[in-house]
This record gives sequence, C-alpha cells and structure tokens, in this order.
Amino acid sequence: MATQRIPDVESGRRLPDAMLADLRHLLGARLALGLAEREQHGRGESYHATQAPDAVCYAESTEEVSAILRLCSAHGVPVVPFGAGTSLEGHVSAVRGGVCIDLSRMTRIIAVRAEDLDVTVQAGVTRIQLNEELRATGLFFPIDPGGESTLGGMAATRASGTNAVRYGTMRENVLSMTVVTADGEIIRTSGRARKSSAGYDLTRLFVGSEGTLGIITELTVRLYGIPETISAAVVPFETVEAAVASVVSIIQYGIPVARVELMDTRTVQATNRYCGLSYRETPTLFFEFHGSPGTVAEQIAMTKELTADHGALDFESASDPDTRATLWRARHAVHYAVQAMRPNAKVWSTDVCVPISSLTRCIAETQADIASASFFISIVGHVGDGNFHLGLVIDPSDPAELEEADGINDRLIRRAIGMDGTCTGEHGIGSGKIKFMELEHGRAVRVMQAVKAALDPANILNPGKVLPAA
Amino acid sequence: MATQRIPDVESGRRLPDAMLADLRHLLGARLALGLAEREQHGRGESYHATQAPDAVCYAESTEEVSAILRLCSAHGVPVVPFGAGTSLEGHVSAVRGGVCIDLSRMTRIIAVRAEDLDVTVQAGVTRIQLNEELRATGLFFPIDPGGESTLGGMAATRASGTNAVRYGTMRENVLSMTVVTADGEIIRTSGRARKSSAGYDLTRLFVGSEGTLGIITELTVRLYGIPETISAAVVPFETVEAAVASVVSIIQYGIPVARVELMDTRTVQATNRYCGLSYRETPTLFFEFHGSPGTVAEQIAMTKELTADHGALDFESASDPDTRATLWRARHAVHYAVQAMRPNAKVWSTDVCVPISSLTRCIAETQADIASASFFISIVGHVGDGNFHLGLVIDPSDPAELEEADGINDRLIRRAIGMDGTCTGEHGIGSGKIKFMELEHGRAVRVMQAVKAALDPANILNPGKVLPAA
Repeated sequence: MATQRIPDVESGRRLPDAMLADLRHLLGARLALGLAEREQHGRGESYHATQAPDAVCYAESTEEVSAILRLCSAHGVPVVPFGAGTSLEGHVSAVRGGVCIDLSRMTRIIAVRAEDLDVTVQAGVTRIQLNEELRATGLFFPIDPGGESTLGGMAATRASGTNAVRYGTMRENVLSMTVVTADGEIIRTSGRARKSSAGYDLTRLFVGSEGTLGIITELTVRLYGIPETISAAVVPFETVEAAVASVVSIIQYGIPVARVELMDTRTVQATNRYCGLSYRETPTLFFEFHGSPGTVAEQIAMTKELTADHGALDFESASDPDTRATLWRARHAVHYAVQAMRPNAKVWSTDVCVPISSLTRCIAETQADIASASFFISIVGHVGDGNFHLGLVIDPSDPAELEEADGINDRLIRRAIGMDGTCTGEHGIGSGKIKFMELEHGRAVRVMQAVKAALDPANILNPGKVLPAA
Repeated sequence: MATQRIPDVESGRRLPDAMLADLRHLLGARLALGLAEREQHGRGESYHATQAPDAVCYAESTEEVSAILRLCSAHGVPVVPFGAGTSLEGHVSAVRGGVCIDLSRMTRIIAVRAEDLDVTVQAGVTRIQLNEELRATGLFFPIDPGGESTLGGMAATRASGTNAVRYGTMRENVLSMTVVTADGEIIRTSGRARKSSAGYDLTRLFVGSEGTLGIITELTVRLYGIPETISAAVVPFETVEAAVASVVSIIQYGIPVARVELMDTRTVQATNRYCGLSYRETPTLFFEFHGSPGTVAEQIAMTKELTADHGALDFESASDPDTRATLWRARHAVHYAVQAMRPNAKVWSTDVCVPISSLTRCIAETQADIASASFFISIVGHVGDGNFHLGLVIDPSDPAELEEADGINDRLIRRAIGMDGTCTGEHGIGSGKIKFMELEHGRAVRVMQAVKAALDPANILNPGKVLPAA
C-alpha cells in the first residue's frame, strides 16, 4: 500500500487516494483539504514557520481518532494532534506532512464527580469552558497556562502556569487518560484512585509526550474547592533581583502562595499601555493567596514582612473580585501586550526553569545578556517555581534578528541547564528545543528514544518533535 | 557466552564461572554465596515463599552497580535489586535465580540543599537515617511507609504511607534519580528544577517500576519545613462505616490533614496488647495536623465538628511530642502486633485503593466478606487517600488457609477494581499481584510490555515481576 509521496503543499494530494477516500467516508465534511485551513493548523503562537499538514480531520470521538490512526498506521502517514493551536515551540508544525487531527470539537464534559474532586472531559475542553461549567459545584480546575488551551493540549505539553506553585502542574493533576496508540488501540492509562502502585506510570509517560507516543482523547483531572477567601497583592521593587530574592525566601519559608508572578519594568510598561492600566513601572510581583480568612490573612502578613525585608516599595493587597480580575487579565495579556509593542512583530517566547536557589543569579545573568539586544525583550515568570520566560519581539522575516534571538535563547538555555535546570519549564520541546535535549539529558535521551521506538515503531506520531533522530 | 544453567540452589553455582570470577574480582568479600545469606535476600515481609538468588552482591557505588549489570547483561543472568527487604508482594524473590544486588550499604547523603528544599542520597539511605541527618536543618522528608525501608526501595515500589494525604507519594516527591539500565548505562532521569516540559517523564517511569526497567542508585527528593505546630487526635467511632464517612467528608471539605489512619476494633485490640496501650477498643481514626498554630487550631476545630457530625464517640487531641510518638509507634507496630496474635503465623498483607466516594462501601463489603474468615484479619488504612490494607494472619504452611486467603484477596481486589480503583495503592505488584494487571489495565498492559521489552530486551531486570508474560 506504500504510495509515492510527492510534496504538493497546495492541494493536500500528498495523501494516498485510498486513504483520502476512507477519511472522507469516515468524516464527511469534517475532512478539510483547503490551504487556509491547513495552514492555520500548521502553526502555534510563536515564531516558528508554518508547516501545513496535508489534511485536517475534525474528530468528535475517541473511536474516530482510533479509526484515523488505523488508516495512518496502514499507510505510514504522519499524524499531528491539534487542540487550540496555542503551543509555542512548533508542536503542531507538520514537518513531514500528513494528517492533523483537530480535537477542538471534542468538548464534552463526560462526568463531574464532586464527591471525588475529579472530572472526566474530552480532550478539546478548554480550561475556561471547564471552569464555567463547574461554577455551580463550588469546585475549580486550577491549572492556568494563560491561553485558551485545551486540556488535552495542556496534558500533552505538561503545561502549568500561574497556579502551579500551589497546585502543581498537569503532571500532578491528571489522574487518568484515554489514549489512542499508533496502531489505533484505545487504552486507559489508569483508574481513578488517588494513588496506585500497580505497574508503570503510563499517565505520567503520556503527560508531556507531545503527541509522539499516542493521542490523548479524554482526561480525568483533579478538582479543588474554590477557596473561601482569595486575595491578591501587587508589590513593586527597585530591581528584579530584589523581587526574585523575596520570592526565594517566601518559598523557602513554605508560605503556600497560590500565585506569584514577576514582570520586569518594560513588561509592566507594555501591559499598562495595552490594557490601559497604571501600575507603577518598575519590577513587580503579583501575588494571589487562597484559603480561609484566617490563613489568607496569615499568608499576607508573612509575605508583606518578607517582601519588605527585601526592599519592596509598596504592598497593595486587594480582595475584591474586580481588582483581582483586572490584575490577572493584565498578567494574561502579556504575550499580546508585548507583541503590540512593534507592528507586524512575532514574539519568540521561550522559558526555562531552575532550582530556586539559582533563580536570582539566572535572571541577573540573563538581564545582563539581553541588555544590549536590538529588539524588545520582556521578562515574566512563575518565579515561585523557578520558572521564567523571555518574550523576544522580533521581525521573523529578518534573518539577522532571528540569529540574534537564537543566540540569546541558546545562552539562556545553557545557563539554566548549567544550574541543573531545564530548557523548558512548561512550553515543551516541540521542534524548537530538540537541539537541547542531549545537553540536558545526556544518555537518558537514548532511553526516551527506545520508548518512542517501542510505542511508535513507524514514527508516525508527530514525527520530528521532542527527540533528536536516533 | 550462554552457559547451561543447572538449578543448584544450595551452592550458588548456577552462575557462569567466568562471571563469578569477575564478580569476585570486583567485589571481593562483598560477593556472598552462602545459602543463609542468599535466602535472607530472597524474601520480603509477607507470605511469599523464599526464592534465593544464586549470589548476593553488596554494591557501594553506582559504578559498581553498572559493572555488575554489564556482567549480568553479557551472561544473560537475572538481577534483583534489594534494599531493606521490607517489600510485601514477593518483589525480591529470585524467581529465575541470578544475582541479587544489595544496595543497603549505599547510605551516603550526597548533598543537602536546604535553600532548594531537596536532598540527594544514595539508594540505601533509609527514611529514618535521612530524617535523623536532616534534624539540624529544620527540614524533613515526609514519606513514611512504616517499615525501615530504603529510599531506593520506596521509589521502586512507588511507596507512600501515612503522610501521603498531605504530602503525596514517592511519585510526587522524587525530583530526579540516577538509574543504571539493563546494559549497565548510567543515566540521570532529570535535573532538579521543580517542573520541566523537556521530554518524557523518565523519573515517573522508573518510580514504581520495581527494578524491572533499571536499578535506582541515587535519588533527589523533596524536603519540607518541619511544621511549626504538630497536633494529633484520636477519634473512636461505633462503626467503621461512621469513621470512614467522616474521613470522606473531611477530604471533600479540603481540610489539609497530614495523616488520617483507620484501625478497626480488632486491630486496636492487637495493638493495645502488643504495645501495652489502652486505646478504646472500637473503630478508631488517628489524625495528625501540621501548620502554624492558627491553621492547626482551625483544622482541629473543623475536624472535630465533622467527626462529631458522623457520631464520633470522643475527640482526644494531643500536641505534646510524647503522646504523638506513642500514637504513631502504635500505628507503625500494627504489622507486628497483628502477627503476634498467633504463634508462627505470617501476615498476608494486601492493599487496595479506591476513589474516596466508594471507600465506605468498599470497606463495608469487605467487612461482610471477611466476617466468617477462619483466621484473624486486621483492617487498617490510609483512608484519606481511599487506601486500606487487610492483614490476613495465616499459617503459610497450611494450603487450606492459603486458599482461603487467596479467595479473600481476590474478591477484595475485584471489588476495588470494579469501583475504578487499583489492586494496590502502595505495596506494588511484585509477583503476587501480576494476575490482576490485565483486569485492572486491560490493553494498557501491552503498552507496559512494549516499554519493558524496549528497555530490557533480554528480560534480565527482576524478571517475573510486575508484568504478565507478553
């Protein structure tokens, strides 16, 4: 059945005719071959060039995903899963063509189990949809990477975001998943018990595998009671170092802050401009505290004292929902605020994560390195986890800027790995960071390659992502 | 190099002569071939029959483990890792003979990093040793499965214990490991960043793999500040159901209890007798609360109210260290207290874990099932996680008792899996629970088998454990 595959990006005709006919029979109008639709599925939100798949399949059930994978497997055709298209490292680029499976129509909430503090959803449910549907239960799902991401995509990239310092990442919050393997087999990675010692941890193996080991179609995730009290605080500092040093002491002291986010001066400026706000334009920490009235008051008092010890210029706390909403809307708008600094620019968004004791030094050395960059670079961070991001606002059509950005990214990552950190805390590897895998993991990459070869021997699952060629 | 392997349990001569010579050259007196020493390494703490390895190697470094594995790999000889010998499902039985690598002499604390709240240790360090050595730092390692287990063994079985409801299991608390793979390669599963999206989660893949994918020689684990205030409470109930129902409501309410342990009436009796105590002999919950004085007082008040709502007969709280120490000594003595109920008996210790909403029903149905057993059976549980244990006090030389115990265990596990739970919350699969793997995981077992075959193609790593034959 092997078909000569002649590149022909325009028409989507690269796929074998028999396979196209079967897909059309399976999906009807939910098989899309038009260029615009394919291109829209071949890019995320960052600087990576678009690489369109040859066809887009809008799946509505696990069984359809299985049927598509059986066809891809039979024909040796690559498969790229697609959720909301918010990934940042070229995860959805169809680097070898093939079929994109768009899971964004799989938006069913399958079961809310308030008594077990868990919920089972289809992979295309977004965190925003989920929290809206949960509102009446008094429960919420805390993981919040900022974008309109789907839960399937968040699991696939091991996403986290602003609440991870308190609630953990997708690694800690996915209880179980339904996954379709390369040959179309449907498996469930585990039951719903909170803990188990029954065999290999397939849930954690598929979380963060970026579609290269299987396609996540359903997830059961943990829920939490909406805190009785939520308060926020905005704390400006003279320097980024002082802000970060205060966070390090807060973490070392064990204060269970729910969120602690850093923005450097220029990012505060960009956000003020974009959102029409008037935060003091200096390095700033944004906190959130969750708990009972007593425990929140205790956390605020301790945080106020520790930030003051590190030279905080102010400590403005707010518990009314409107002020908090404004604050987090501003934080979540950073990507777009930064992009709006320059017409027709793209943000090369990169992130690293280091042990907390190295965070101040890592950020300071990074500031020194980027001081003379020829374009705007924002620094924002989930600093309670040791995780921070650079947003490099570049013209992606200018090779000189791409090369300069590449150098800055390269030095950032070598710096983080040199501190026993990681080349990405939450964005994932995609195609963009494959070149750092061996630097970070050494010979462990061979173990990953062996796992990949075992589960996807024909290399059809999101090929060209996560791992260097074996 | 394949050698005809003639069973000869007495002499340890099953190993190829050339290999024995190389091991002797490598280890000198740390290679043991005597029957008593081999038999002592072929059994854990439960009912499983002893199956002695052909040789015991006392390793002192990762490099030695690597050298031993290179030899085993070259000669196709099985390898069984051994820590403290406290496992409960036949994990250390040398079912196909071969070499036991005893890691209990690898007791070095490699680096305490108080500022990062982590520590790196060799695999033979016990949790007791670790916490003693940490005392001056104000930090502690919370995972407490009860025995004198080594951290390597705890990671290998994904252990947890009494504190897991608050601090998680080994799954959540291992940051990184050094692992020796089947071919003797030394890898590190990750750096020390608190989160990472850089490739497959090898740390979680090796945690819980019971020596079947690689041998853990070093671990970096998370530490926590010793709580400012620790209080305990003992709460007796009329019935197990009432006790469990109150725990379910405490968990659903989100009260961050550090420990909540159930003992049924007969287990309290056994413990009173064994430890010379006088707890009221009725189903009882033992709590521990960690935090600041204010948050602990709040937790106690809420717990008292919720247990009273469920008919608690009393609520005796204690914050002095002596009372707390007595209480947890009693809890940890349960295994031996129960065993002491009957001369020359062994405890068949089994555990399951279910979603919390099913816990009351699971325990009630189990009580009904075991009411007419011909031997003593204790019920204890880490009920905050939905996890409970039966201790079946049997004469392991009596086939009728073994068969009766097997039936009770079988029904318990089918009940738990039927509730979307697991056949083991924390003891692991070993050889004892392999027969339930397909019932629990279905076709996902094939994915586990593919991973095993990829990482250990010759099946030398703890063969006959975790997975049914492919």
